[in-house]
Amino acid sequence: MSDTETTTSSNALSHAVSNASFPLDAIDTATLLIKCRDQAGIVQAVSEFIHRYGGNIISLDQYSTAHEGGQYFMRLEFALVGLSEIVDNFEASFAHTVAKRHNMNWRLHDNAIKTKVGILVSKFDHALLDLLWRHQRGLLDCQITSIVSNHPDLRQAVENFGIPFHHVPVTKDNKVEAEEQIHTLMAGNDLLVLARYMQILSSDFIERWPMQVINIHHSFLPAFVGADPYRQAYEKGVKLIGATAHYVTAELDQGPIIEQDVHRVTHRQSVIELRAIGRDIERNVLARAVNWHVQNRVIVTGNKTVVFN
Amino acid sequence: MSDTETTTSSNALSHAVSNASFPLDAIDTATLLIKCRDQAGIVQAVSEFIHRYGGNIISLDQYSTAHEGGQYFMRLEFALVGLSEIVDNFEASFAHTVAKRHNMNWRLHDNAIKTKVGILVSKFDHALLDLLWRHQRGLLDCQITSIVSNHPDLRQAVENFGIPFHHVPVTKDNKVEAEEQIHTLMAGNDLLVLARYMQILSSDFIERWPMQVINIHHSFLPAFVGADPYRQAYEKGVKLIGATAHYVTAELDQGPIIEQDVHRVTHRQSVIELRAIGRDIERNVLARAVNWHVQNRVIVTGNKTVVFN
Amino acid sequence: MSDTETTTSSNALSHAVSNASFPLDAIDTATLLIKCRDQAGIVQAVSEFIHRYGGNIISLDQYSTAHEGGQYFMRLEFALVGLSEIVDNFEASFAHTVAKRHNMNWRLHDNAIKTKVGILVSKFDHALLDLLWRHQRGLLDCQITSIVSNHPDLRQAVENFGIPFHHVPVTKDNKVEAEEQIHTLMAGNDLLVLARYMQILSSDFIERWPMQVINIHHSFLPAFVGADPYRQAYEKGVKLIGATAHYVTAELDQGPIIEQDVHRVTHRQSVIELRAIGRDIERNVLARAVNWHVQNRVIVTGNKTVVFN
Amino acid sequence: MSDTETTTSSNALSHAVSNASFPLDAIDTATLLIKCRDQAGIVQAVSEFIHRYGGNIISLDQYSTAHEGGQYFMRLEFALVGLSEIVDNFEASFAHTVAKRHNMNWRLHDNAIKTKVGILVSKFDHALLDLLWRHQRGLLDCQITSIVSNHPDLRQAVENFGIPFHHVPVTKDNKVEAEEQIHTLMAGNDLLVLARYMQILSSDFIERWPMQVINIHHSFLPAFVGADPYRQAYEKGVKLIGATAHYVTAELDQGPIIEQDVHRVTHRQSVIELRAIGRDIERNVLARAVNWHVQNRVIVTGNKTVVFN
Repeated sequence: MSDTETTTSSNALSHAVSNASFPLDAIDTATLLIKCRDQAGIVQAVSEFIHRYGGNIISLDQYSTAHEGGQYFMRLEFALVGLSEIVDNFEASFAHTVAKRHNMNWRLHDNAIKTKVGILVSKFDHALLDLLWRHQRGLLDCQITSIVSNHPDLRQAVENFGIPFHHVPVTKDNKVEAEEQIHTLMAGNDLLVLARYMQILSSDFIERWPMQVINIHHSFLPAFVGADPYRQAYEKGVKLIGATAHYVTAELDQGPIIEQDVHRVTHRQSVIELRAIGRDIERNVLARAVNWHVQNRVIVTGNKTVVFN
Repeated sequence: MSDTETTTSSNALSHAVSNASFPLDAIDTATLLIKCRDQAGIVQAVSEFIHRYGGNIISLDQYSTAHEGGQYFMRLEFALVGLSEIVDNFEASFAHTVAKRHNMNWRLHDNAIKTKVGILVSKFDHALLDLLWRHQRGLLDCQITSIVSNHPDLRQAVENFGIPFHHVPVTKDNKVEAEEQIHTLMAGNDLLVLARYMQILSSDFIERWPMQVINIHHSFLPAFVGADPYRQAYEKGVKLIGATAHYVTAELDQGPIIEQDVHRVTHRQSVIELRAIGRDIERNVLARAVNWHVQNRVIVTGNKTVVFN
Repeated sequence: MSDTETTTSSNALSHAVSNASFPLDAIDTATLLIKCRDQAGIVQAVSEFIHRYGGNIISLDQYSTAHEGGQYFMRLEFALVGLSEIVDNFEASFAHTVAKRHNMNWRLHDNAIKTKVGILVSKFDHALLDLLWRHQRGLLDCQITSIVSNHPDLRQAVENFGIPFHHVPVTKDNKVEAEEQIHTLMAGNDLLVLARYMQILSSDFIERWPMQVINIHHSFLPAFVGADPYRQAYEKGVKLIGATAHYVTAELDQGPIIEQDVHRVTHRQSVIELRAIGRDIERNVLARAVNWHVQNRVIVTGNKTVVFN
Repeated sequence: MSDTETTTSSNALSHAVSNASFPLDAIDTATLLIKCRDQAGIVQAVSEFIHRYGGNIISLDQYSTAHEGGQYFMRLEFALVGLSEIVDNFEASFAHTVAKRHNMNWRLHDNAIKTKVGILVSKFDHALLDLLWRHQRGLLDCQITSIVSNHPDLRQAVENFGIPFHHVPVTKDNKVEAEEQIHTLMAGNDLLVLARYMQILSSDFIERWPMQVINIHHSFLPAFVGADPYRQAYEKGVKLIGATAHYVTAELDQGPIIEQDVHRVTHRQSVIELRAIGRDIERNVLARAVNWHVQNRVIVTGNKTVVFN
């Protein structure tokens, strides 16, 4: 309790759950992601380029796997007054100079442009509601455009947030059409989030959203792949249960892991109780993973992720 | 993802967040809490008494502080067909025999009767919404009767859950009247929960709700008592921040601690980010504390708690 | 820092790592473990029996899987003056009355008699030294009789603790003889601990020590069974690494799990660093598991454990 | 268990407990620490300077408190063939160019030169032994020169590691002389570690070792300053206990915090058990703090630390 009601507007909190410091003002800041062969002079070249444009580096993270073939990864945030006007020029110039010279795989993201996110869900609402709450409080740095579910149950809960809800029933027979319908409804999004969507997406669908679909799996992968992992955990008698947020690939529950967490349990918990405890893990792990993705903190390399947070 | 939609009705999950196994059927089960001087034969006497009534012990927890004056605490859940009919007889008989013989301070709770809970809140909605959501899912083993706030902001969010919302403004001048109004509105509840209620309740008010008010303080008590603890934590440079659920007593933030938890932070987080991270700790810690209270798992002794979970 | 050197003798700490309260005096206390079909009146019958002998129940834990066939488990510690004189009489009487009536699978352990423990190790010393150090400090409630290693490296470190060290080299050709030699050296022990013993014991050997061999596996099982789990974890890109203490059965790394724990890692850690971080997890997890076993807190049921701690 | 004995020489593990990637070869790498006013072009200027010398940046961490007066902090590791020959020239040149231009507070550390560490201890051996074990395994990136204790008890344990042990008794009357003797014995060290040294060092002594003394305090500071914090924690009834590693300043237990951690406890643990659980926290927290310090990962700012790990 406290008599001083320091109610800071949570709209400033965009990056708050990201465990990373954030730009004072999203306008006029950009994020640069780089992937290339490890070599001398990269930091110098990049920072010198930004400096020449009058930019100021806000944060810089780098990682190199020198001991295994020497891949190099960089995430750099910088502030630059009037960025939006000169961003095209900046990109063109960067492409023909620094990026070319060092043979970089790179991407520039204007922080003023919010990532568009669509969410798929079935009947369990905990992961979905947690994302919607955080978004409403300004704690998820993206734009949630619409929700699709194979069940009608969550329409009211979703519409309370003023977000469109689409019911797309899925049966053995209409699976292809249903996925086509989902693909159309979700067109224009940068990211799809499976917030406990209990249908397996076809590899055709996945291929159209490469590293653009994040799933929350309700186990500590690679343990307990597939159906009803809490029952598997119960039957194995593990002393910790967990959840894993990962990019969806053609192989079930095998995509690059973004985030994981666990919670201690004992022999006393029934499968039903494990599911309930797991819900709290799932919603937090998924929220962290989505926030890191939309903040361009995640770089995929092989079947693993580099997360700059 | 999983094609098998094992959607277990979450309405069975009453005790799920309690980290403790639970009665198969709340009807016909009761919880007995005992506090007395440590002495031989207590378990024997109590279990023999219940056995005589045809009851079956579902769970039994005990704790004794033998090394300090020897206080003894017991929590016992038992099943007894037709309990409601014979509960008065049971209590009367227990009082005159076992309880009297061992000079026990005891309480019997029929698990079919749900604890009535009222919630006070200000502007921050995270702790409140989490309680309402868990309640709606059958994850909070109580009846939430109504919400009182000193701000109008959360009316819609609360009413979406079908629970009455009362706006009771508090100013320096009307504090006494406001508290009187709150007391009247909350009459009939067994427990009041301060879900980030940013007004200090008077000791007069507290005395009328002894060990019946649970507050969530946004620090790892006893560190950072009082206002804006996240700023205090930031300025101290601690490497973990926390939250504490405790019973409210006349002395600010000094009542018996029910539950605490922490989250790792670094020098990088601003005060605003600490507040955002803290929200996730607060809502979980408060939900656990409230659930343990309404399941009669908490016994207060001196300024500490015995929590059988 | 503190000028008051409150150096409490750590020799009183026998149960300290067990997260459970402990008998004031190990002499004259006993631990009773019971396993039977769930049924009414067990607590009453057992407590009444102990009461008749003038015993006082110090702690009582029970667990029943009512929802799955109804198995019942109890761990009960009681104090009884002059126990050692009457223990045989107590056991005989208990067997013919309570145990017989409820068809119990049971065991009585006089807490004055320390469990005899032998340790097998290879070259890594972290798990071994931690056990020896805890034992020396009175933090491991057992008697460590001797150490066997397939390498000579750790002789001096072991002998510094005044414990005999035996070097038993193991090759492809002498495996049978080596195991025979180990079995002979370890005869008389109640428990064998594999503190990073890097040889797979034959099923013949295991069968002679049923549920009497505890191994520390350096992964969060069931993930990463077999060789070099830290490399497997590195290649999978998990965000948490762990360790698992389990009873050894014929099937590699599949025995009943006693305890597990994890530690957060990032993409930055190399395999070598994962191994180093893992050491801290391994030594703590193994120490907890061994302590729970020697305190008779672990009951095996099927391929799972009930741990009363 | 595993038949493949992948016993990687732990001597490569120097930085292993640091949760940070480490130089492939400590020879020919250096660490540069910078503190200055936040301003544009710092990264560019520094990286360009290193590049001109043919150095390659291995890791770069930076942090700026833009929102509070704009302080800037950088830690940079670089590899440079033949560093030792040109290091003086490098420093002189850096001082007169980059450092001068940006008015930097800076320090260059040749990673080939190990930090010299002396340890003070009383009777509790857990924190001391853990440091000595890690050091022996190559997990502490420093040179431990000698141990001083105000009690003779730990001589044998220390000398088993081949490290000199000095007994310096401290009484009310000889405190000044004792500290003088300690200061002389410890002369030449870069860091003093108080591994549960139960004497309060005078401010005169502390002033001679500014931010060069690390203490492990056995509570989650700022809670429970001073004597017997585990008893304070017990009496407060907290649900988590902790330990804090901090630099020692004139004010008792108030210096800049380097690292903290906690462990969950319940009402069941006695003070003696809290002390035992606490030992495991203390030794890990202290080891991390010392490792970060000797790896030049800690920068003090005001009464807080920036830890690049």
